[in-house]
Amino acid sequence: MSRIYNFSAGPAVLPLEVLEEARDEMVDYKGSGMSVMEMSHRGKVYAAIHEEAKQNLRDLLGLTDDYDVIFVQGGASLQFAMLPMNFLGEGKVADYVASGNWGAQAIKQARLVGQVNVAADCEKEIPTRMPRDGECKWTPGAVYAHITSNETISGAQWKNLPKTEAPLVADMSSDILSRPFDIRDFAMVYAGAQKNLGPAGMAVVVIRKDFAAAGNKALPTMLKYSTFIDKDSLYNTPPCYSIYMLALTTRWLKKFGLANMYRRNVEKAAKLYAAIDASSFYRGTALKEFRSDMNVTWRLPTEDLEAQFVSEAKKVGLDGLKGHRSVGGIRASIYNAFPTEGVDALVAFMKDFEKKFG
Amino acid sequence: MSRIYNFSAGPAVLPLEVLEEARDEMVDYKGSGMSVMEMSHRGKVYAAIHEEAKQNLRDLLGLTDDYDVIFVQGGASLQFAMLPMNFLGEGKVADYVASGNWGAQAIKQARLVGQVNVAADCEKEIPTRMPRDGECKWTPGAVYAHITSNETISGAQWKNLPKTEAPLVADMSSDILSRPFDIRDFAMVYAGAQKNLGPAGMAVVVIRKDFAAAGNKALPTMLKYSTFIDKDSLYNTPPCYSIYMLALTTRWLKKFGLANMYRRNVEKAAKLYAAIDASSFYRGTALKEFRSDMNVTWRLPTEDLEAQFVSEAKKVGLDGLKGHRSVGGIRASIYNAFPTEGVDALVAFMKDFEKKFG
Repeated sequence: MSRIYNFSAGPAVLPLEVLEEARDEMVDYKGSGMSVMEMSHRGKVYAAIHEEAKQNLRDLLGLTDDYDVIFVQGGASLQFAMLPMNFLGEGKVADYVASGNWGAQAIKQARLVGQVNVAADCEKEIPTRMPRDGECKWTPGAVYAHITSNETISGAQWKNLPKTEAPLVADMSSDILSRPFDIRDFAMVYAGAQKNLGPAGMAVVVIRKDFAAAGNKALPTMLKYSTFIDKDSLYNTPPCYSIYMLALTTRWLKKFGLANMYRRNVEKAAKLYAAIDASSFYRGTALKEFRSDMNVTWRLPTEDLEAQFVSEAKKVGLDGLKGHRSVGGIRASIYNAFPTEGVDALVAFMKDFEKKFG
Repeated sequence: MSRIYNFSAGPAVLPLEVLEEARDEMVDYKGSGMSVMEMSHRGKVYAAIHEEAKQNLRDLLGLTDDYDVIFVQGGASLQFAMLPMNFLGEGKVADYVASGNWGAQAIKQARLVGQVNVAADCEKEIPTRMPRDGECKWTPGAVYAHITSNETISGAQWKNLPKTEAPLVADMSSDILSRPFDIRDFAMVYAGAQKNLGPAGMAVVVIRKDFAAAGNKALPTMLKYSTFIDKDSLYNTPPCYSIYMLALTTRWLKKFGLANMYRRNVEKAAKLYAAIDASSFYRGTALKEFRSDMNVTWRLPTEDLEAQFVSEAKKVGLDGLKGHRSVGGIRASIYNAFPTEGVDALVAFMKDFEKKFG
């Protein structure tokens, strides 16, 4: 077995010990005589997995009883639609921040449903960034305000998450559980699972009960947050194996500690940004004050050199460094499970590559 | 390792060799240095898995180029809503057959969207059954007609699938790929994956291109069939690992052969029905002509005896025999991957149990 360093933006690297545990339990989960994939979602064995997944998230996010945790298939992309379908009715307006590709996608889906105010727009700016304090023009009486905490493609991240009068909703797909934050500032937080939480196949939604209660009741059952809340994400068969992997991944994170993880994430990112800043060959894509700890993005002097960088890196086991097809460049995604040794290997490779081609 | 006989209705038993392959490839998929869970859905390694999953389904279902195969998260339950959202517009009517719990759920979701005609209703009849030839009152000009090919809870199955003037749509969640059928009679077939196809976490939708083209274009992107067709189920991150497991499971089925599998399914079911019919202690739930080959349902003289049957069976490694909570009784789900030896063990147990308690 030879594992590579996988810088993919998502699906992304998972902790090796989590994969090994999943492997060892694949055919017979803890003496049940079944794989987790095979067991009834109404049985006791699965119920314990479901509970652990929720409780680990509650513990790591410091949730009070005011919040529910639900598991919804369809990733963050379906959340872009469910959020306005549930809350953005006729005559109402929602605030959105256009901070990059993902913020723009959330806006596009909301506009199919209702009225959107763009509170701030830095979507297409280069260097990439997030809005500055005071830059957002929030709408009085908005039903909610939506931000993207980390733009995976541009490599920009909110460092001081805003506080808003309207219920604040965040797409945290690419930085949830990478750092502590105060959930009490948010009415809802959602995240596709495939970066810091587990494999692709669902979104985790953390939602304040009073906010959820105001949702549209006339929607199809599977598109209402209230269905998932009332039925504990078991109205229909949930993605049991994805939830199992999330339980293992969050168990691993609890053991490591969120504060320790945050410290390690900052250190990993700092090593890459230091390598970028130490050279005029590499140029960081994001403004320094908004540099993401999860997705480090930079350019080389030419696109040809970028292509060569990606392909030479792959040859030495540094995979997935190609920037998103919409923007090009280089992107190193270094989520929680990405090991420090892989960052060190990339820094060394960057120095070598510059020596040869710089 | 000691595997039990798992009669769960879904999630359900998977082929042991498929689970063993998944186990062996968990940490390093074919020398890629990554788990399938960790790899980019835009990369070449995953692309081959995605293609195989689709091609296996195309081969097994005998699809012509007129049909697309797509993977949609949310299970059959989300399909209950997506189908009418896409096709049942203002001033239109769709025909539905109420044949049991699942047919009724499809009707309930369609009524939230548009006008429904119930073409036949045997939902609450005991013994359970499907409509007889000529019993369905189809609506001229209906946008589609919807049936449930196998009612998992009641244990009734269409033996002669109907032909309709309107585009025919079938929920085949619990019997897809258990028997051959002529796809050309259908505009669309969908199935939650967690019975005959793989683990829970998505639905497979087979849809005729001209039918799909008539869909509502104003829906949120993730709720339009056209999105999944146009983007090859890769508009957003698909449930990669579920698709991988489906590729392995359909590869296993291709090796076995669909005709052989159908023969084995009929034989397995016949053994259980023969055991039921040989005794006055057990009473089958479904009318004989509609007995399901996938979900065999029966009653004992009292609910106490049923509870005892389930618990004694569990002690000898026959698990998941409790009927659905909405109807009680006993249910043995014996999908493709369920081994004949497990059926034989259940038949022997039934005889013993009757001797002791009958």
